Amino acid sequence: MSLIDRVGKALEPIMLAMGLISPLATLPQIYKLYFSHSEHAAGLSLITWLLYACIASLWTVYGLYHKNPTIWVGNGLGFIMYVAMVIGIVIHTGITL
Amino acid sequence: MSLIDRVGKALEPIMLAMGLISPLATLPQIYKLYFSHSEHAAGLSLITWLLYACIASLWTVYGLYHKNPTIWVGNGLGFIMYVAMVIGIVIHTGITL
Repeated sequence: MSLIDRVGKALEPIMLAMGLISPLATLPQIYKLYFSHSEHAAGLSLITWLLYACIASLWTVYGLYHKNPTIWVGNGLGFIMYVAMVIGIVIHTGITL
Repeated sequence: MSLIDRVGKALEPIMLAMGLISPLATLPQIYKLYFSHSEHAAGLSLITWLLYACIASLWTVYGLYHKNPTIWVGNGLGFIMYVAMVIGIVIHTGITL
């Protein structure tokens, strides 16, 4: 096993955890949108969160195709989070940029 | 060359483009924060965007280490975008959740 293989393998569990941190980091933003700061929903970009959701869904499919959980687990969870953002923005401020 | 190698290689330029879409998708959110909806900056989560920036910086380093532009180009650009969000939130609403 080459050095890169070994280092890569050692990093793999950390990368899976890293892949989960970004989706989980979205929770405070979801909390603000739905609960504490709904009146500021107009400041959120529907385009941004919609594209985040689309891209996460494509990465999820790509990760499943390659049977690579490091890719599909984090992006699958990310997709759920970004869809929650899209729904919250539409509920609280309607169609916007 | 195996089928997976070939399909993977064919997908590679698309994945690089996909890796760029998420950072670029952040531009409308940055525009709202700095220009059109600065008064709604309180609805943005500093924690979320700070963590996005941290994770993007780690993926950038990981991609550079593996000399994989599909990873580091998109994440490097993402890091710049997320830092812009962090700075904008601090300027317009200060330290917040």
